[in-house]
Amino acid sequence: MASIEILDRSTMTERLYDGLVIDPGETAIIAIDMHRGHLDMDVATMPTKPEDARRVIGNAKRALDFARAQGVPVIHVILVYRKIPGLGSEGMKSHFWRALHELVTEEDRLTPGRRSTVNGHNLEGSPGTQIIPELLAPSDYVIDNKKRLDCFYGTDLKALLDTLGVKTVCLMGINTNTCVLNTSFTAFNHDFRVVVLSDCVGSMYGDDLHVLGLQNVARCLGWVVTNEQLIEKMRAGAPAQRAESRAPEKVPG
Amino acid sequence: MASIEILDRSTMTERLYDGLVIDPGETAIIAIDMHRGHLDMDVATMPTKPEDARRVIGNAKRALDFARAQGVPVIHVILVYRKIPGLGSEGMKSHFWRALHELVTEEDRLTPGRRSTVNGHNLEGSPGTQIIPELLAPSDYVIDNKKRLDCFYGTDLKALLDTLGVKTVCLMGINTNTCVLNTSFTAFNHDFRVVVLSDCVGSMYGDDLHVLGLQNVARCLGWVVTNEQLIEKMRAGAPAQRAESRAPEKVPG
Amino acid sequence: MASIEILDRSTMTERLYDGLVIDPGETAIIAIDMHRGHLDMDVATMPTKPEDARRVIGNAKRALDFARAQGVPVIHVILVYRKIPGLGSEGMKSHFWRALHELVTEEDRLTPGRRSTVNGHNLEGSPGTQIIPELLAPSDYVIDNKKRLDCFYGTDLKALLDTLGVKTVCLMGINTNTCVLNTSFTAFNHDFRVVVLSDCVGSMYGDDLHVLGLQNVARCLGWVVTNEQLIEKMRAGAPAQRAESRAPEKVPG
Amino acid sequence: MASIEILDRSTMTERLYDGLVIDPGETAIIAIDMHRGHLDMDVATMPTKPEDARRVIGNAKRALDFARAQGVPVIHVILVYRKIPGLGSEGMKSHFWRALHELVTEEDRLTPGRRSTVNGHNLEGSPGTQIIPELLAPSDYVIDNKKRLDCFYGTDLKALLDTLGVKTVCLMGINTNTCVLNTSFTAFNHDFRVVVLSDCVGSMYGDDLHVLGLQNVARCLGWVVTNEQLIEKMRAGAPAQRAESRAPEKVPG
Repeated sequence: MASIEILDRSTMTERLYDGLVIDPGETAIIAIDMHRGHLDMDVATMPTKPEDARRVIGNAKRALDFARAQGVPVIHVILVYRKIPGLGSEGMKSHFWRALHELVTEEDRLTPGRRSTVNGHNLEGSPGTQIIPELLAPSDYVIDNKKRLDCFYGTDLKALLDTLGVKTVCLMGINTNTCVLNTSFTAFNHDFRVVVLSDCVGSMYGDDLHVLGLQNVARCLGWVVTNEQLIEKMRAGAPAQRAESRAPEKVPG
Repeated sequence: MASIEILDRSTMTERLYDGLVIDPGETAIIAIDMHRGHLDMDVATMPTKPEDARRVIGNAKRALDFARAQGVPVIHVILVYRKIPGLGSEGMKSHFWRALHELVTEEDRLTPGRRSTVNGHNLEGSPGTQIIPELLAPSDYVIDNKKRLDCFYGTDLKALLDTLGVKTVCLMGINTNTCVLNTSFTAFNHDFRVVVLSDCVGSMYGDDLHVLGLQNVARCLGWVVTNEQLIEKMRAGAPAQRAESRAPEKVPG
Repeated sequence: MASIEILDRSTMTERLYDGLVIDPGETAIIAIDMHRGHLDMDVATMPTKPEDARRVIGNAKRALDFARAQGVPVIHVILVYRKIPGLGSEGMKSHFWRALHELVTEEDRLTPGRRSTVNGHNLEGSPGTQIIPELLAPSDYVIDNKKRLDCFYGTDLKALLDTLGVKTVCLMGINTNTCVLNTSFTAFNHDFRVVVLSDCVGSMYGDDLHVLGLQNVARCLGWVVTNEQLIEKMRAGAPAQRAESRAPEKVPG
Repeated sequence: MASIEILDRSTMTERLYDGLVIDPGETAIIAIDMHRGHLDMDVATMPTKPEDARRVIGNAKRALDFARAQGVPVIHVILVYRKIPGLGSEGMKSHFWRALHELVTEEDRLTPGRRSTVNGHNLEGSPGTQIIPELLAPSDYVIDNKKRLDCFYGTDLKALLDTLGVKTVCLMGINTNTCVLNTSFTAFNHDFRVVVLSDCVGSMYGDDLHVLGLQNVARCLGWVVTNEQLIEKMRAGAPAQRAESRAPEKVPG
């Protein structure tokens, strides 16, 4: 097995952390694919490791509860697939996923050592598409038509963030190195401030890609913070007049 | 310095490689940011390591020459920035890049141990925006308005690929873990077959993130091949009738 | 009242009509905002004229029934708004719609002589968001997160069309000169063949703009056909082998 | 020839005009396809009527000179086509344009009574792609990779507007009912305030579609103003502190 040295960039990332301001009044949490299809071992068709599921759900609940109490909106984005006659799930249009499906045994696909399937993953109406109940609150927004790896692709996420006046996005969810990383890239490209919550992400692809996903964000495009750091930064970033600054101009009638 | 074990997924990637078909008649090479701003140490404002620049230029030249001889179109996509009064370069609108600029010394930014600057990088008309001459042929297409990490973002790359009838994209260039990876993600999301040319990519951010970028592609969304493998696959993938299959319906008059 | 002469372009449009081929195997119907919020006078918050609603519903039902019988997929795209605390409906983020809301009486807004409201239009869960029942079949696809005038904007319509192998889109719905026309533009820009079904569209803004919408499509970007012409063209366009040509490559397992 | 009554919506549009504020500090002019390919009869391959060209150029020069004097940025967006081997111009990928090319004589295509060609229009390096010299100033921004009817499609226009802090776009150019209208739609969808400059637009497709294009904007999505009104609104909308409000946060070094 090859091993690789992680470059020490702490002098850079520490200075960047010191300069980070998270104003709850212009921040949203984006919770990515926090559904049973990844996180509930009873029904998951692309399961993370069970211990990752437990860790991520517990930490995400703490972060979400804190954020909601600060008035920070929470946006769930989840993948759901239609079945297309003659094709299978909408995911089967992908060359790579179809090749995996056709050529590789179920135990040796995306989730090493655990069975997974694109064609049977998160079909409309299946239990896998349900958001983990303890992570969902009535005030949350839900976007449930993600089709590929990027939460912005084919969804109204950008429009919703702009409507909410968001400038900083805090990302959590599954998988660190694909949907979270791809969404981080796109959020960066749209000039959002990108913060990835390291306690609240995990990867079904392997711990190495989880670590490298976080390294990639912290060294190239955004900030990686723990729950403790998130809370500290949100407390420090809240101006006294936060409540008003969130509110858009009032609508009469 | 932390070290991390790379998971061995060779049984999966070998089966995927065996199944890979690269038909030159529906393939394009996308050469990403192969400009002097990264690769010519005399003018680079975000330099790779000099030995990476030499390796990537040499290998890319061989791959491009072969591809062009097969009739495969080559599309260069490069980042060029306007200067905006009161702001600086268009890159300074990015929260992360601006924070780096303001908080971190030039030697400790994106390119560890080598000076770099976003605000001075690839301004319109500067030498950094020139494509490395030996990588550019008259028949190549050039897209020179990339502004962030994704070659598709704010460019006509998708339209050009569709106009050319491309289904498979082979990516090369700088940096493995940012522009190449971000473009791989988006190409995957658009249902292209994604092939990253490992001999022809490099990262100014560090070798660890270069390895990450390749691992992430090979295990999550596409194929990573050497020059030798590219040549083998292109030769095998060319049907006798390739020339016609590329040609769109004829235009009279 | 000003009156305006419509230019006679029949020699051009007739030749274009003669050359039009509609192959059911690569065609989809896009039914735009065929919901009660426009078409059911009991609940409509942006009502068309009642006689337009009757005409469009009746004709659309005939066209849809025919299309489904040919195996042509039907995609409903409808606008649905979240309520945003402090803002109102998501539509209130629009400068123009907000200005209308704040400055103009309900009877003199988008729908001349009939009351209308953006802020109360098609809120999540309201009856206005329901598709007119006789226009919806179990095999239809539904996209219900349209937020502005373009069916492609912030939705997965493009991805779904590509997944279905669609090259020709036939548009129906409300309003001829806004959502239908804007979607026609975008479909044209994406290089779809655009056909607007003149019997199945109408405009709450006025008959003049309905005529404009159709003229604009027929003279600048696509084809305008009646139900009778649609049926004729679909019958003529169906190759014997249609069933196979629709089917994507088979998926094992 | 059919004639059509234009609905009188003046009570609505007058109230909307009264409420319109154009703050030069957050406004940009978008000049659409103001090139010789439409406006210089000596080289135009899709010519407007000569009198429209004269009117539009003269009025646009006055509006642009005034705007620049207020510090309002001007962004030219123009269509330029590559030649693609085996296809012709990039425009020939469009089903509608190709059908016109193949089926209809040159005098009876898009520009009634005047010869036009998609396949020969605005090829890279041809004189048609040159912006009308009196409309171009050194401080203007130029985006020259528009490929279809929408100035946002496949370009970095959205990114540039955001970088400049623009909230209001004033549109001028050719053609009122296609590129100007399509760009108006997309700007509306992106929640810009849309203002179309009626003295500075024209249509090669016919006067009826020019009129209807303006009606469509004024009654459905934005404001239509004369040069005189533009000047009045810009003067009224400029706060004393305008200069600062434009300036983004300062960049050190």
